[in-house]
Amino acid sequence: MSDKRENSADEEVETKEMDDRSLTPDNQPQDERYIHKVGVPPKQKLYKEIKSAVKETFFPDDPLRSFKDQTKRRKFILGVQAVFPILDWGRTYNLTKFRGDVISGLTIASLCIPQDIGYAKLANLPPEYGLYSSFVPPLIYALMGSSRDIAIGPVAVVSLLLGTLLQAEIDSAANPEDYRRLAFTATFFAGITQATLGVLRLGFLIDFLSHAAIVGFMGGAAITIALQQLKGFLGIKKFTKKTDIISVMQSVFGTIRHGWNWQTIVIAVAFLGFLLFAKFIGKKNKRLFWVPAIAPLISVVLSTILVYITRADKEGVAIVKHIEKGINPPSVKDLYLSGQYLPKGLKIGIVAGMVALTEAVAIGRTFASMKDYQIDGNKEMVAMGLMNVVGSMTSCYVTTGSFSRSAVNYMAGCQTAVSNIVMSIVVLLTLAFLTPLFKYTPNAILSAIIISAVINLVDLHAAKLIWKIDKFDFVACMGAFLGVIFFSVEIGLLIAVSISFAKILLQVTRPRTAILGKIPRTTVYRNILQYPEATQVPGVLIVRVDSAIYFSNSNYIKERILRWLVDEEEQAKKLYQNKIQFLIVEMSPVTDIDTSGIHALEELNGSLKKREIQLILANPGPVVINKLHASEFVDLIGQDHIFLTVADAVSSCSPKIMNDV
Amino acid sequence: MSDKRENSADEEVETKEMDDRSLTPDNQPQDERYIHKVGVPPKQKLYKEIKSAVKETFFPDDPLRSFKDQTKRRKFILGVQAVFPILDWGRTYNLTKFRGDVISGLTIASLCIPQDIGYAKLANLPPEYGLYSSFVPPLIYALMGSSRDIAIGPVAVVSLLLGTLLQAEIDSAANPEDYRRLAFTATFFAGITQATLGVLRLGFLIDFLSHAAIVGFMGGAAITIALQQLKGFLGIKKFTKKTDIISVMQSVFGTIRHGWNWQTIVIAVAFLGFLLFAKFIGKKNKRLFWVPAIAPLISVVLSTILVYITRADKEGVAIVKHIEKGINPPSVKDLYLSGQYLPKGLKIGIVAGMVALTEAVAIGRTFASMKDYQIDGNKEMVAMGLMNVVGSMTSCYVTTGSFSRSAVNYMAGCQTAVSNIVMSIVVLLTLAFLTPLFKYTPNAILSAIIISAVINLVDLHAAKLIWKIDKFDFVACMGAFLGVIFFSVEIGLLIAVSISFAKILLQVTRPRTAILGKIPRTTVYRNILQYPEATQVPGVLIVRVDSAIYFSNSNYIKERILRWLVDEEEQAKKLYQNKIQFLIVEMSPVTDIDTSGIHALEELNGSLKKREIQLILANPGPVVINKLHASEFVDLIGQDHIFLTVADAVSSCSPKIMNDV
Repeated sequence: MSDKRENSADEEVETKEMDDRSLTPDNQPQDERYIHKVGVPPKQKLYKEIKSAVKETFFPDDPLRSFKDQTKRRKFILGVQAVFPILDWGRTYNLTKFRGDVISGLTIASLCIPQDIGYAKLANLPPEYGLYSSFVPPLIYALMGSSRDIAIGPVAVVSLLLGTLLQAEIDSAANPEDYRRLAFTATFFAGITQATLGVLRLGFLIDFLSHAAIVGFMGGAAITIALQQLKGFLGIKKFTKKTDIISVMQSVFGTIRHGWNWQTIVIAVAFLGFLLFAKFIGKKNKRLFWVPAIAPLISVVLSTILVYITRADKEGVAIVKHIEKGINPPSVKDLYLSGQYLPKGLKIGIVAGMVALTEAVAIGRTFASMKDYQIDGNKEMVAMGLMNVVGSMTSCYVTTGSFSRSAVNYMAGCQTAVSNIVMSIVVLLTLAFLTPLFKYTPNAILSAIIISAVINLVDLHAAKLIWKIDKFDFVACMGAFLGVIFFSVEIGLLIAVSISFAKILLQVTRPRTAILGKIPRTTVYRNILQYPEATQVPGVLIVRVDSAIYFSNSNYIKERILRWLVDEEEQAKKLYQNKIQFLIVEMSPVTDIDTSGIHALEELNGSLKKREIQLILANPGPVVINKLHASEFVDLIGQDHIFLTVADAVSSCSPKIMNDV
Repeated sequence: MSDKRENSADEEVETKEMDDRSLTPDNQPQDERYIHKVGVPPKQKLYKEIKSAVKETFFPDDPLRSFKDQTKRRKFILGVQAVFPILDWGRTYNLTKFRGDVISGLTIASLCIPQDIGYAKLANLPPEYGLYSSFVPPLIYALMGSSRDIAIGPVAVVSLLLGTLLQAEIDSAANPEDYRRLAFTATFFAGITQATLGVLRLGFLIDFLSHAAIVGFMGGAAITIALQQLKGFLGIKKFTKKTDIISVMQSVFGTIRHGWNWQTIVIAVAFLGFLLFAKFIGKKNKRLFWVPAIAPLISVVLSTILVYITRADKEGVAIVKHIEKGINPPSVKDLYLSGQYLPKGLKIGIVAGMVALTEAVAIGRTFASMKDYQIDGNKEMVAMGLMNVVGSMTSCYVTTGSFSRSAVNYMAGCQTAVSNIVMSIVVLLTLAFLTPLFKYTPNAILSAIIISAVINLVDLHAAKLIWKIDKFDFVACMGAFLGVIFFSVEIGLLIAVSISFAKILLQVTRPRTAILGKIPRTTVYRNILQYPEATQVPGVLIVRVDSAIYFSNSNYIKERILRWLVDEEEQAKKLYQNKIQFLIVEMSPVTDIDTSGIHALEELNGSLKKREIQLILANPGPVVINKLHASEFVDLIGQDHIFLTVADAVSSCSPKIMNDV
């Protein structure tokens, strides 16, 4: 620091040369303490001001940073690389990385094939559509995405959400063709929504779903999905189409006498046990991560052979029966781009697209921070969007990043998005040659696989932590959780979003304020509730406002300060202390003020004048001091009543109070 | 202050007895500077915590304050007085006050009668309904309201809004009976909405319409209303039902050849000139406030006599023709409490009720702060609500406080709500005896009166100030203004609300951050953009976060801090300075943190660890420090890396940096 001290003489000069609106406390008694002026930053040009506000809102990550000071040709190359990151990392791709990607790609393929078949059922679609969705979208993502660890494909929660929303419009059993077309339409608009958010740089909108709400929503969805699996798990034929726990329980226990199939239950319980045991092993020893990863495929193979040999399907064990052979048929002509289903597809697409995005971005961020690389959220959204648009034209439904498969991908040592390509090729081969082999696969196994997959989404540890840290967050979490379980995924989602918004509104309407006192043996003033040893100065009330003063809270802040004043005056009366003569408002946390805020300050000043109390401001920030000048509020309270620190402000009051006593 | 210093010994003891989680920077080198610990407030009980949060949100004004420590009988009396403030101020009512109220009551009555007749037309209702609405509601308000200056009755903007919304559902010309019934239904639900907001203490919801948006909306509505008056002003018979400026202009200039009536125009222009001149006189000399106040009535009387004598109505001058004689007929049975019009009435009622409330509360607050008395916003809403509910049952449409009449009321020296009672009695007498006298009143006069009344709502001065202070506010203002003028009042209102919300969302997603430097000759650290003379400490980056860290901004804040770091590191490299080893986050403005925020901090800490940078926190507030402890984040960065001030934090870094150099 010593090298800096030498410059202090120069700085003094600079200070004097600053904006002439600088506030000099002229008529203050010259005491020994050095009092620095409150800085008034040079006023920015309007264009520059707007530009910087727009930049910070939509381009906080400065995406064009690397384009600066480059030749035109280089800029072009960088631009193409920005759209297709594969061109960037592809150049340094090598055999070591490829080995890692092949191993991880094979691992996630073995995990995704049985999951896909099950998840397609959650979306009320035939099983091959799950596989289709694991073939095309991962390829597109590999070209355009910037996450190295994410595993793309259908996921449980989005499948359930899509299934519920679509089923509300068209009955999948009565009208499978229209249902399928609406599913593609929704997928198309989900992609459009995602890409639009990315292009318009509105990615921050998904931040409005709070972590706590997501934990609750995911937990609720996981339990709902698990309950749905009871149909396959218990071999029940007639099952409710509703997803709330009460309807499902009625379906389950209403059929207990002559609806359950014991052979199915035996198979299901045995393999669920096997799957959970494999999970347990994987958890105990991180090196054995591949055990739970390939356990589902092993279960499918074993159970299929078992059913084929014993012909248990004749005993009532439900089997997959048929998966269409061959790769994705085109579905461009299936999209509803006009007619009554267009707005419905649009609505469902927006909801499903946003939820899918929330999951993908959370995954991308998690793994990026684990490996310490940066992800451009908005670019990521464009990649997701295009992948779903292309998917909707090739018989895929909404896909996103799967948390469980991404974790396996990461642990299996994936290096780049090539692992997604490997997975995609395996799925392609499966579609082309292997689908007939799934004929005798019992549905119960798929149910067991889904149950063991979604069980991890119930994050009790996170819920406990939320409870400990923030009670309001816990309400949001439980609201979303119970909403999903007792009503439907939509209601749960609506509750999650509403509570998240309510929290934001509360934050901006009811900001905190605090009374400050002097910490002994320092010149520091702090909240007297946090520092009970801090002492208040008689005759002076120091209030800190802990938020920008905007229309949404300006009135509250004004009234709150006046209420502090009344409280303090009553107490002062009781203790026969001096009447309060100065109100110091510590403005450090007040980052901004708008016209309503200025009005509120003017009204506050008016009320104080009537009570013969002087208003003093401490440490207004750059934006605030500019606006106080623009509105001429500074002249209203006097330039000499604005200070750099609370300590300076107090020292300006003390002599006067002394005299009065 | 000296008396406090003596206690410092005791305080030292207190400090040591504080919560044992207090942070002692044990392994810091003992230098001469006194370093105070960061206080950890005693943890509140859950019930108490929730109670205080609820209280601050819904009862910030502590409405039961006066009930404390009172006998049961006294509590009962206070309770009744709280519902009917008239019982409170009525006891000290005297003849002097009564004289003021009578004079002001007569003045506002003379102003309101011609206005009421005109405003009823804006709402597409027969003229007597305007008068009805100035009879019953003011009486109810006088019993229950707490503002002393507000003048109750129909107002221009709400009349226009109600008229537009109702006309969209039912054509008032084709089906006047149903239209009238829907108007009462909407009024009923407007009242219910207002009372409900008050009872549920949700009054703060109306704060979400920003001052700037209101200025724009009011200005736009005023111009729209004035344009509508061109029909009466120019004597046009066929006029568009739309309110946007383009349709109106087409109507006006399409009829220029054979639609305008010169006799009407002569009368209108002459009396508008008279009214504006009266206004000018009232503005020049505040004592002559009564000149513009009675000018409308004089205009009505003179023009009526003129038309009666000259029989100008036979020349095409449109006249009022008929106002129903007699007081308000009951309209309870007219309310649509079932059927297709119920939801429409409800929707219109909610919108009109909220807008009416916004106007009334703004008026109440303005005059209360001028006379320095308190208004309970929520109680006021209950009064407004009941007044409209009763109004809807007695043939009144939505009423609220009128800004122009309230100002006249104030200047005429009103003392209490008795002036509203006086006005109400005058309106009663008019309805009972005088309505036939209005038969020959030309419509052009009513148009002139409305134009001269609404012209004040175009507040150019306020708009200019908004431009100077806050550009974003100005966008909201102009958006609402242009929306009303070029589309409709609803669209304008929607734009106003949307922009207001967008501003709140921006505030919570993109909080400001600042790099701090040391102000020379002090131990104070401030924003280096505001204080260019402030010096940064080499090897240490000090960032201040200017907002609570919530899910909506946690990710942005994390990335913003890392971006600051990258920038600084690049700069340090250029200048061959030390590598950055410490990141100090000044937490003073961070009033709260939620689970997402803690996550972001953890991720930030992880990224910093990878770069071998130590994270240090300065001055976390009471809520934040508790949550940092609950989440065990404190243990993650080490208790000895949390300080009371930035200066303390920097002094803990300096020795280490010195050693490394």
